[in-house]
Amino acid sequence: MNVPTKDESPDLWEAVPPGGNRRVLLSALEAFSGRGYKASTTREIARRAGMSPAAVYVHYRSKADLLYELSRIGHAAVLDDLRATLADGGASPERLHRFISTFVAWHARNHTLARVCQYELHQLPPERFVEIRKLREEVDRLLDAELERGSESGDFSITEVRSTKLALLSMGIDVARWWHPRSVPSQELADNYADLALRMVGATRP
Amino acid sequence: MNVPTKDESPDLWEAVPPGGNRRVLLSALEAFSGRGYKASTTREIARRAGMSPAAVYVHYRSKADLLYELSRIGHAAVLDDLRATLADGGASPERLHRFISTFVAWHARNHTLARVCQYELHQLPPERFVEIRKLREEVDRLLDAELERGSESGDFSITEVRSTKLALLSMGIDVARWWHPRSVPSQELADNYADLALRMVGATRP
Repeated sequence: MNVPTKDESPDLWEAVPPGGNRRVLLSALEAFSGRGYKASTTREIARRAGMSPAAVYVHYRSKADLLYELSRIGHAAVLDDLRATLADGGASPERLHRFISTFVAWHARNHTLARVCQYELHQLPPERFVEIRKLREEVDRLLDAELERGSESGDFSITEVRSTKLALLSMGIDVARWWHPRSVPSQELADNYADLALRMVGATRP
Repeated sequence: MNVPTKDESPDLWEAVPPGGNRRVLLSALEAFSGRGYKASTTREIARRAGMSPAAVYVHYRSKADLLYELSRIGHAAVLDDLRATLADGGASPERLHRFISTFVAWHARNHTLARVCQYELHQLPPERFVEIRKLREEVDRLLDAELERGSESGDFSITEVRSTKLALLSMGIDVARWWHPRSVPSQELADNYADLALRMVGATRP
């Protein structure tokens, strides 16, 4: 099974040089999402990519580098999507609705990559983990800022900020665990979850 | 690290004969949660349990049997806790509050076992998967019944039933991914999430 047909955003890979690099990376994604990072071998990744193990090392130094590269691409893509949707402006309820809808849709459409990003996070080497954590913290900060902004404007009435933020992120992240293309359409799910998010912060649909 | 000190419910294991059986099962839990099911070997599980690989097979026929047994214990325990809390009765908002609080607290307190139950589900042999799926469907049915009951009584005003159910379950399940004993106390988190759940169904705190 080829990964871009499983995930719905082949343009994620546009920044990766086509040919060998991209083939190795997508083979690593298939291997890590199917068997887990620890159980995947460079030999297996090479086989999936139709290369010799030595040829893999021409593109990536190690299995850990492949995990880092996948994690970086995934986390950076979510962050880009969130920043883009917030740049459209609007009142707090509208902004939060778009934020959650974007976050949920991303985790559905890119569920294979999202699973690797979320569930293999602690397999990253410590110095790589620190880099990825910065991207995650930036997502947190964006959501914190939205919740604060909506509270200050009186648009939101939040019961407890930390739990609300955690629950909102969890709703989105956990979509990657169960979503598949034959379950609920990603945009429909994203919009329904965004409606729920407004209820959670004590706002109404914009 | 010994598993019962990581998870907070050592009584989960009371039904497992102490001695060899329990030692093997807890070693499998440590291995599966640390390295993943696919990357864990019977040899490693035996070593963690202080046994020979042959001695492991006296207690469990295969690595797949160990995963099944852990999955069965975890899923049955959640279901027992949910049934017990619903048996206390009450009006719909109270019942849903207790349901979500119980579900969230379970996934925090038993986060190690919960992770194996959730993230290794598709590694179960097909006939075992079917058995575990029945337990999961029963959790679904309990929540469906609560949402229906609250809608009929007029206590809940649900925007979209399926997404609401999925989001409620995801909030709880995803706790197992990130929760650790030094993060927010499990009961506090459980109560805050239950408050959010009432907002999601359009009810107010009982």
